[in-house]
Amino acid sequence: MKFRRSGRLVDMTQYLLQHPHQLVPLTFFSDRYQSAKSSISEDIGIVKETFEAKQLGKVETSAGATGGVRFIPMTGEAEAFRQVDALCERLEDPGRILPGGYLYMMDIIGDPKVMNEMARILASHYRNTGVDAIMTMATKGIPLAYAVAHLLNVPVSIVRHEQRITEGSIVSINYVSGSKKQIQTMSLARRSLKAGAHVLIIDDFMKAGGTIRGMMDLAEEFNASVAGVAVLTEAVHEEEKLVSDYISLTKLSAVDVKERKITVERGNLL
Amino acid sequence: MKFRRSGRLVDMTQYLLQHPHQLVPLTFFSDRYQSAKSSISEDIGIVKETFEAKQLGKVETSAGATGGVRFIPMTGEAEAFRQVDALCERLEDPGRILPGGYLYMMDIIGDPKVMNEMARILASHYRNTGVDAIMTMATKGIPLAYAVAHLLNVPVSIVRHEQRITEGSIVSINYVSGSKKQIQTMSLARRSLKAGAHVLIIDDFMKAGGTIRGMMDLAEEFNASVAGVAVLTEAVHEEEKLVSDYISLTKLSAVDVKERKITVERGNLL
Repeated sequence: MKFRRSGRLVDMTQYLLQHPHQLVPLTFFSDRYQSAKSSISEDIGIVKETFEAKQLGKVETSAGATGGVRFIPMTGEAEAFRQVDALCERLEDPGRILPGGYLYMMDIIGDPKVMNEMARILASHYRNTGVDAIMTMATKGIPLAYAVAHLLNVPVSIVRHEQRITEGSIVSINYVSGSKKQIQTMSLARRSLKAGAHVLIIDDFMKAGGTIRGMMDLAEEFNASVAGVAVLTEAVHEEEKLVSDYISLTKLSAVDVKERKITVERGNLL
Repeated sequence: MKFRRSGRLVDMTQYLLQHPHQLVPLTFFSDRYQSAKSSISEDIGIVKETFEAKQLGKVETSAGATGGVRFIPMTGEAEAFRQVDALCERLEDPGRILPGGYLYMMDIIGDPKVMNEMARILASHYRNTGVDAIMTMATKGIPLAYAVAHLLNVPVSIVRHEQRITEGSIVSINYVSGSKKQIQTMSLARRSLKAGAHVLIIDDFMKAGGTIRGMMDLAEEFNASVAGVAVLTEAVHEEEKLVSDYISLTKLSAVDVKERKITVERGNLL
C-alpha cells in the first residue's frame, strides 16, 4: 500500500513512538510505504523538526549501510518542572497522612499517566548511559520501572522480598533496612538478569536507602554494574543515607502529623 | 508557534497516542497550532484514515460544543494473531521447565514490548465496556495491568498477599487457592478503589482460578462490578475452573517434564 506524505508522517510518528531507542533502518520505512529513500529522509526531517520544536525528544539519523533512525524520548525542562511541581502539590494533600506518619501514595503509583510522565523525565536523564536493564523492588517500584524500561527499550528485573519464588534458582542476599535496622532478605531469579548488565535501579521511595543499597549489592552478585539509582520520592533522613549517588524526582522534606502538614519539594534531579 | 500541516500531523499523532481514550477538544488543537478549526478537522481526518488503514485504532470525533476527538487504540486481527503466535512459540521453549513442572516466565513478563503488545489486544477487546479501573495481583500481574490501564486511561489497584500494608485501612478477604486448596489472604487498601467502580481484573497466570475468584470477591467488598477477567496465560486444569467467564491470550495445554516438551496454543480470545 502506497502512502502519501501526510499518511507517512502519521504512521512514522506512531511507529517511532512505539519503538523508542531502537534503530529503524530507512529501508524499513521505504518498504513500508513503497517510497523512495529520499522521500523517507525528508519525512524524517519533518518528524525530527517537530519533535525538537515541541521538546518531545530527539530523532537521530545515521547514514551508511547500517544507517537508520532512532527516537530518543525526552521531556523539555519547562515541562519537567511543571509535571514535577504538579506531583509535589498532589503529594502535599494532608489527607495522605496515615497513622505512624506514613504517606498514602498508591493513587499516584496507580496512575499510569503520572508514572509515564515521571518515567520520561528519567529516560531523558539516562538516555546516554548505556543502561541495558532496569532493576526494581516489588511491589511499588514496578510501575515506574516498566514505564522507564519501555522508553529505554530494556527489560525489567523484579527483586522480591519473598524467598519462595517459583522462578528456578534464585540469588538471595540479606540486607539491613536503613530505617528500622532490621535484617531482611531480597531475592532475584538467576535467569532474570544477564551477567554483566548495566542496570538502572528504580524504586518508589527512599528514606535511609537500605533497600536500594541491597539492590546494589544484589546487582554485584550478577556481576552487573550500576548505571544509576532513581527514586520517585526521597524522604529526609536524620542520619547519613546508605546511598550517596542517586536521583530523586520529589523530596518529602517534612511531615507534621500534629499540624497535618506535608511539605514536598522538587527532588535533586531538577 | 504556528505549525504547518506536516508539523501538525506529527504532533497531533504523538499527542493522541499519549492520551488514549481521552476526549481532546478541537479547540485544544486549534490553540496549540494557532490554526483554524477547519484545518484541524482536516488534519484529524488524515490521522483517522492512516490509523484505520494500518489498523492501529479508531479516531472518533464528536461534534458540538463538547465535541472533540478521541483515540481508541486497537490491534488488527492479523497482527494480534502474529503477536500471540510469537508469544506461544517463545513459551514453548523447553528451557522454561522448572522443577515441579513450573514454567519460567519472568523474561516475558519483564519485557515491556511483549506486555504492551498483549495489553493492546486486551484494550482493543475491552474498549467499549466502560472499564474505569484495573485490578491486579502483585507481583507478576502488574506489568500487563499497567500497560492495559495506560491504553484504557484508567487507574490500577494492586491487590497484595501481605496483610501488613502501610496504606491505611485495608480490606482483606480469605480465599482458597484453587490448585493447592490452601486458605490464603489478599488485601487491598480501602482508598485504592473507588466504590462502585467497573473493574477489569488482569493477571499473568490462571490455573484453577482461585486467585481470580478471590479478586472478584474482593471487588464485591468495594461494591465494584466486574467488567471482565483477562489473563496472559491459562493452564489446563483437570477440575472445573472457579471462574467461568474470562479471556486468555495464551493457553498452556501440556507440560511434559520427562520429555521436556511444552505445548502452548492461542488462548480463548483469538
